[in-house]
Amino acid sequence: MDLDTLAHDPTSARVRVAVDAMGGDHAPEEVVRGALGWAARHPDVDVLLVGDEPQLQPFIDAPLPAHVQIVQASESVAMEEHPAAAVRRKRDASINVCMRLVREGRADAVVTAGHTGAGVASAILNLGRLRGVDRPALAVQVISERGPFVLLDIGATTDSTGVNLAQYGRMGAIFSEQVLGVSDPSVALLSIGEEGGKGEQRVQDATPRLAASGLRFIGNVEGKDLPHHPADVVVCDATVGNVTIKFFEGLSSFIFDQLRTEFRRWPLGPIGYLFMRPGIARMRRRFDYERLGGAPLLGVKGTVLITHGRARRRMIGFAVEVGAAAARARIPERIAAALALDEARAERIAAGDSAGDAAESAAAGA
Amino acid sequence: MDLDTLAHDPTSARVRVAVDAMGGDHAPEEVVRGALGWAARHPDVDVLLVGDEPQLQPFIDAPLPAHVQIVQASESVAMEEHPAAAVRRKRDASINVCMRLVREGRADAVVTAGHTGAGVASAILNLGRLRGVDRPALAVQVISERGPFVLLDIGATTDSTGVNLAQYGRMGAIFSEQVLGVSDPSVALLSIGEEGGKGEQRVQDATPRLAASGLRFIGNVEGKDLPHHPADVVVCDATVGNVTIKFFEGLSSFIFDQLRTEFRRWPLGPIGYLFMRPGIARMRRRFDYERLGGAPLLGVKGTVLITHGRARRRMIGFAVEVGAAAARARIPERIAAALALDEARAERIAAGDSAGDAAESAAAGA
Repeated sequence: MDLDTLAHDPTSARVRVAVDAMGGDHAPEEVVRGALGWAARHPDVDVLLVGDEPQLQPFIDAPLPAHVQIVQASESVAMEEHPAAAVRRKRDASINVCMRLVREGRADAVVTAGHTGAGVASAILNLGRLRGVDRPALAVQVISERGPFVLLDIGATTDSTGVNLAQYGRMGAIFSEQVLGVSDPSVALLSIGEEGGKGEQRVQDATPRLAASGLRFIGNVEGKDLPHHPADVVVCDATVGNVTIKFFEGLSSFIFDQLRTEFRRWPLGPIGYLFMRPGIARMRRRFDYERLGGAPLLGVKGTVLITHGRARRRMIGFAVEVGAAAARARIPERIAAALALDEARAERIAAGDSAGDAAESAAAGA
Repeated sequence: MDLDTLAHDPTSARVRVAVDAMGGDHAPEEVVRGALGWAARHPDVDVLLVGDEPQLQPFIDAPLPAHVQIVQASESVAMEEHPAAAVRRKRDASINVCMRLVREGRADAVVTAGHTGAGVASAILNLGRLRGVDRPALAVQVISERGPFVLLDIGATTDSTGVNLAQYGRMGAIFSEQVLGVSDPSVALLSIGEEGGKGEQRVQDATPRLAASGLRFIGNVEGKDLPHHPADVVVCDATVGNVTIKFFEGLSSFIFDQLRTEFRRWPLGPIGYLFMRPGIARMRRRFDYERLGGAPLLGVKGTVLITHGRARRRMIGFAVEVGAAAARARIPERIAAALALDEARAERIAAGDSAGDAAESAAAGA
């Protein structure tokens, strides 16, 4: 394990979060104000605002406290640019500067509200994948009846294999345990039927790997189970995860919008709404995804949190909070160590297995 | 095109629907009562109740009208059986008898509330695929802001290719046009980003095929677009479609349950609910998926409609209605004819293309 290339300096008690001040629909204003507001309440965490200083200054009302610094980055990636190309072309883009701070050991985590694709591309380019990981995964906390659970991959890389899905399970479990504080998290595969091994080929391939992983693997869950917290960690391919999470956002605001329209349409509706307000506020709090901070990118050599492009200051604050917690938990180190163990286990199993399986395991560990 | 093996007798004006009276959570009672109730209002359609007569009789209160018949089937597939195995083992299962009625030209459509996997397996076993279709697809109407749209595949077969997705687009468009009355329906691919060709490999492979199809192809749509009727036909792989549609069911009932709980929890809630009742009833009507009847299985040599396992008599009635409409529209014939044209077009395009593409096109048409 290549600890030297990892972000966190274990001798330092302070965590340092690099915030991409230029990324997101409401950057730099909302990002700067969100990060500064959070920093004011958390003097124990260093915050590095990464962006073009003249563009940030208008939103900095008072002298910066000692634990907040601006790091200059002259360029930025716009939401409509081709993410991977822009990241490669613009060496000094704020997101690249953030990642380099982590690579150089000058920061412990990156938080960005910029284009998801740009964040993923920049992390892979500047930090690189952890040993044994061929596909990093973007995880998200999904709101359910019994609190949030972790869903991944929601869109780091498409066309995953069974080996990838099994790794997602491991990485999601580490995030769930270390950052969300779930002890011995349960892990499930999101599939088309509940019977073990049922579903697409990669789900069938991932099943024996997860079963042998030592994780608390509970088999397949279905789409209908998601609102009821089917497991602490739910694993799926990027397309399934991305469609699911975006549909969730779209559908819940659609239903709430419909409700509001109905309240207004009917003459007595506004009175009804008045009576209902506390209940609706309680529901809105339950569906408050801003608190969840954003999506950790797991499997790269550093802690990266990608928050919503539409994030405003409140959500930026939560994102910095989750980023700091993930950095403190040393997630990349834990993932690298766990995957090395998984690899050794897979090799032992493969040794007692057919030649084909052994070759596949070796490829998986490469 | 093998018209002889297709269901509908074009010389007959009457449509004949075979109803699997033994399939579904509430079979036979709800299925029998639903089919009989619908038949009483539709004397122009023949209804064949397929099941074990002694088990059906208790739910038949009056002598059967002339246009309703019972067709004996001594066996049935239980919801918990392995569907494909049960379908092969139980020759005389009601679902198999239904399919044989269509194959033998004695019925024009099958309606079943039985296990989806059993319906799909029985259709493929007894009716077979249409020429040029290697994967039938299960389509569903999804409720959205501007009326329902067609989503497919929601779970007939996993691990689709780009060729399959392009065929789904064609089949869905025919259903949309002929049964739902949408003229020149728009077709989109459900993917991870809106940029054309972005997303998993099969989506990228399907893009040029759909672009060249003559269909009104509008490119990629995302999960967040689904509540807003992104296209008349939305195409995706079975796992994506299945997770999406089941999540939709799960999430909307979750949100409505939460609302009801909130109404009850607060002392003044029930008063608020009273004021709100008309609006909530209107919303419930909009989310009334029972009216949509069920999921047509497209790409097999016959009209098959698979409705919800939990369907009660009202939804069974709507399912028979959609099944009759699909039979009247001669969907399988139209799909076979359109795919033959698509195949010829693909061959023409491939002839002017690289050798690799040509080989792929030939494989697609095989």
